[in-house]
Amino acid sequence: MGDLEIQPATADDVPAIVALLADDPLGAQRESPDDLTPYLTALERLRSDPHQHLVAAVREGRVVGTLQLTIIPGLSRRGATRSVIEGVRIHADERGGGLGSRLMEWAIDTSRREGCHLVQLTSDNTRTDAHRFYERLGFTASHVGFKMAL
Amino acid sequence: MGDLEIQPATADDVPAIVALLADDPLGAQRESPDDLTPYLTALERLRSDPHQHLVAAVREGRVVGTLQLTIIPGLSRRGATRSVIEGVRIHADERGGGLGSRLMEWAIDTSRREGCHLVQLTSDNTRTDAHRFYERLGFTASHVGFKMAL
Repeated sequence: MGDLEIQPATADDVPAIVALLADDPLGAQRESPDDLTPYLTALERLRSDPHQHLVAAVREGRVVGTLQLTIIPGLSRRGATRSVIEGVRIHADERGGGLGSRLMEWAIDTSRREGCHLVQLTSDNTRTDAHRFYERLGFTASHVGFKMAL
Repeated sequence: MGDLEIQPATADDVPAIVALLADDPLGAQRESPDDLTPYLTALERLRSDPHQHLVAAVREGRVVGTLQLTIIPGLSRRGATRSVIEGVRIHADERGGGLGSRLMEWAIDTSRREGCHLVQLTSDNTRTDAHRFYERLGFTASHVGFKMAL
């Protein structure tokens, strides 16, 4: 396989990223790949916030993965800054090939460089394969993740 | 009891907020209330980021509760902005008196006002009383929360 680049997502990457978000048992129900307008608006919000890193993993000109990293300062843990990883998606053709680990390593390295003392994420209770993947990377399933739709 | 005000935390509130963070089975091991320097530095980081809302709940001039709300734009869920709640702490004298609900309602109302479609938080697996509290407020324990110290 060709070289992999992990780079900030641009408007040109949005159709491919939305396709990745929708190609997922949970995402299929909540994404609308036929109308990219809300996604392009959201990209502008992300790009105007220096604490947001939405990246595209690109191989041979094709977006094959994505994740979003957010840097969050805080008072707890002696004023520790933490990072939160959201929206990890790997193209079906690349699953099991190490791209997920590459993307997560990028997120962990970037978190360290930004001075974070902790990196965290939540994963739907039904994604048991993903849970094993995160534990292999060194994450601990120490918390319950609560959500409420508004 | 006197009136309650929920207001942005200032440097004057930091000693009381750190005392709340430390007066906790988990926080006792990871906070250093005798050295406020890292907390004051972190407060500056929080105040320079318009997506961060660290608040103090004040009654009769005394800080009796705190939480941090972070607004996170994103591409998933049709470009939905979400919020994350961290560091919810209630003074021992006020527990069971409704202050936790008041603070959480403030966070949920603020999230709505900022255009969030989702509000989320993680809670340590050992905080079973807190889990019941969040479920009573309408949160669903749909996710596993993973953390890794860096």
